[in-house]
Amino acid sequence: MKGFHLNLSVMTPGHFRHAWRLPHADPLSYLDIDFFQRLAWIAEDAKIDAVFLGDAPALHDGIEEAPGTGLDPFVLLGNLAAITTNLGVVITSSTTYNSPYDLARRFQDLDHVTKGRAAVNVVTTGTPAAAANFGLTEHPGKRTRYRRAHEFLEVVTRLWDGWAPDAITADKDRGRFADPSRIHRIDHEGEFFSVAGPLPVKAGPQGRPVVVQAGGSEGGLALAGRFADVVFTVAQTRAKAVAFRDDIRRRAAAAGRHPDDVKTSLGVVVLVAATEQEARRREQELYATLPIERLTAALLRNLGLPHGEFGPDDPIAADDLPDTVPGGAFSAGFSSATRALIAEGPRTPRELIQRGAGGAGHRLLVGSARQVADDLQSWFEAGAADGFTVMPAETVVDLENFANLVVPILQERGLFQEDYGHRTLRGRLGLPLPSPPLPTAVQALA
Amino acid sequence: MKGFHLNLSVMTPGHFRHAWRLPHADPLSYLDIDFFQRLAWIAEDAKIDAVFLGDAPALHDGIEEAPGTGLDPFVLLGNLAAITTNLGVVITSSTTYNSPYDLARRFQDLDHVTKGRAAVNVVTTGTPAAAANFGLTEHPGKRTRYRRAHEFLEVVTRLWDGWAPDAITADKDRGRFADPSRIHRIDHEGEFFSVAGPLPVKAGPQGRPVVVQAGGSEGGLALAGRFADVVFTVAQTRAKAVAFRDDIRRRAAAAGRHPDDVKTSLGVVVLVAATEQEARRREQELYATLPIERLTAALLRNLGLPHGEFGPDDPIAADDLPDTVPGGAFSAGFSSATRALIAEGPRTPRELIQRGAGGAGHRLLVGSARQVADDLQSWFEAGAADGFTVMPAETVVDLENFANLVVPILQERGLFQEDYGHRTLRGRLGLPLPSPPLPTAVQALA
Repeated sequence: MKGFHLNLSVMTPGHFRHAWRLPHADPLSYLDIDFFQRLAWIAEDAKIDAVFLGDAPALHDGIEEAPGTGLDPFVLLGNLAAITTNLGVVITSSTTYNSPYDLARRFQDLDHVTKGRAAVNVVTTGTPAAAANFGLTEHPGKRTRYRRAHEFLEVVTRLWDGWAPDAITADKDRGRFADPSRIHRIDHEGEFFSVAGPLPVKAGPQGRPVVVQAGGSEGGLALAGRFADVVFTVAQTRAKAVAFRDDIRRRAAAAGRHPDDVKTSLGVVVLVAATEQEARRREQELYATLPIERLTAALLRNLGLPHGEFGPDDPIAADDLPDTVPGGAFSAGFSSATRALIAEGPRTPRELIQRGAGGAGHRLLVGSARQVADDLQSWFEAGAADGFTVMPAETVVDLENFANLVVPILQERGLFQEDYGHRTLRGRLGLPLPSPPLPTAVQALA
Repeated sequence: MKGFHLNLSVMTPGHFRHAWRLPHADPLSYLDIDFFQRLAWIAEDAKIDAVFLGDAPALHDGIEEAPGTGLDPFVLLGNLAAITTNLGVVITSSTTYNSPYDLARRFQDLDHVTKGRAAVNVVTTGTPAAAANFGLTEHPGKRTRYRRAHEFLEVVTRLWDGWAPDAITADKDRGRFADPSRIHRIDHEGEFFSVAGPLPVKAGPQGRPVVVQAGGSEGGLALAGRFADVVFTVAQTRAKAVAFRDDIRRRAAAAGRHPDDVKTSLGVVVLVAATEQEARRREQELYATLPIERLTAALLRNLGLPHGEFGPDDPIAADDLPDTVPGGAFSAGFSSATRALIAEGPRTPRELIQRGAGGAGHRLLVGSARQVADDLQSWFEAGAADGFTVMPAETVVDLENFANLVVPILQERGLFQEDYGHRTLRGRLGLPLPSPPLPTAVQALA
């Protein structure tokens, strides 16, 4: 069936970040390329569309308790792309802490070497600690970061479109390799960037690498409507997910795009086993790894509640919540997903933390393979998303279980692909090739 | 025999950049990952220490005539490292157009995923066009670029050293993953950079990735003496190469290092065939691809001579040359190598261009496999270099000929390794592991 896409987040030890404490876990697997290569082969055998890794360019402040930020995603996923054939790679990069020429070039060239499997997940970076690694005295505010992100993607897109498809003439007799009049500078001058271009080489197989966007704030949604091919979303309730998808499609249409040209991929933390009983047993095991006091404090901050106002087992009701979440708190998407849960009825921090995979905010789905498959199918059929980004609760176990137990059910039901079809990620996602640049003559005159 | 190292430059179509015009050449091979993977496997079969690729982040201005700058070296060589086991990768990166935190992180993490095969070739970028791609109205002068490069490498090195080897405690019972007091911020504040650190993960197998330096100006040599593990050099005469190696070893000693801890690798363009006659035939074929008028103009500029002062076949004598080369011309190393040739006797631009591989400045070595092996051996034994960076005249032909015909001779003579010994590139080059950071307690108090 067209349009049911699956990505896999390869974060390890898993989306329960404290899973490294389990007896069988290797705490150093997050630095072990052999481990990740095995994950990539499992994912490719299961015909997963793409692997994904989040990132922030700083040491995360919970290093006492869990690995957190690991290897640079460009380095790690670039390696995994090299040892696979069909798997797409969705690489998180910051528009706040990169330069657009460098990023445009690296992703375009990754598209060449992967033969059309490169995707960039643009984030504005919500980690204040990153600022001090890049010469800033303070982390820019969200509005500034998104203004920069808009301009960043405008520059990157124009750079990707800079070479006319027929620019390389390769005329051996005359010794003319390329026609410079078909290779266009962009000469961008804006608030944040001044970039001349063009890139050193022509576009890769996808024309433009796939652009993914993940932020749920107004700034993030506006950016997604204009630029994103795929939007990663977070939702704890089906109604919220449906409304989000409708909204993002409307925004794409308002930006002059076809609504089918933007796909949503709903993040879901999956804890799956052969039987529900076994899954429930592992769930308890994972809960026991959580530092509940610290996570409660983080949750209260995220919801805009005073420190210490609620203990782990004190119910929080809708009218306990402030109307607005203070700036500088957690991501807007995570806050809003959690608030939607509380709106359904009072919840304790412990419940919220457990349902949100140790506090990371995404919905936790626990069960047998059939239960997980049923859940994904029903959300998909309700219009909650065009696909899912599977975030294994504990990577080493839940990826293998998902690939070996859940995927075959989804394939039997005709929901998920049994074979990679299109050669490129863009083609597989049903996204159009970007429009080619204007005809040469017109641009050359302009 | 210890200390005879071989790197391979994988520039294509070759160091005769116009070789794409030859009847059998594929003009688009420079974008073809399958082509490069085949080169990497040939190099690894031949036990070559590392592959190398130069770079400048801009469209090169000779695109009408030849490919020039190709794929981003980090992307391309990262891919080649992933599909090989022992081959080192020497990746050119600009200290002028990168940020040190990002570069330190990417190379450290490449060291993890390659299990100790990462090397960065730091350049300050001599291509003025790059400036306009990174928001600068003009390309910084050489003195500024090298001042920035010093500070850049100081920051990068301190970031690489930031985690004490015992920082990860992985205490499952207590839930303590790492000891933050053993992970050190650098809090660097300098003329160009303000960087807090630390990096998100600990150092890779090499401790620090290998640092390569390639600039021959006073600024470049000073940088090399202080930071470089390997120095790429250019010399048209043996005396020049010997003097250079002595100089760089003295500079390392003056910086408090052991002179054996810096290795020189002499770039040499190799055109090799089964017989000398065949090599000479191919040499003429390659000369015929050269746009001699344009290269003559570039050569005169490089030597500080007025445009049009000499035709391709007018001899230039030593006293025709100005005392100093104007700023903004070609690299100091290339100018100085060419001037050394002219000092031996008058040369025409055509001769100089042909001896310098189409004008790129490195020495061209043409002959049978035995002749090439004899030449390399005699230069090595004269103390001209610790090894060579082989730059195939025409990559697709000369790499294979070098690997299949020359390497076995060097191995038979006991000069070059028959097997990869050390697991890491640093170990193989006979370089020490960097000193570990100060003991934790001392740093924590400081």
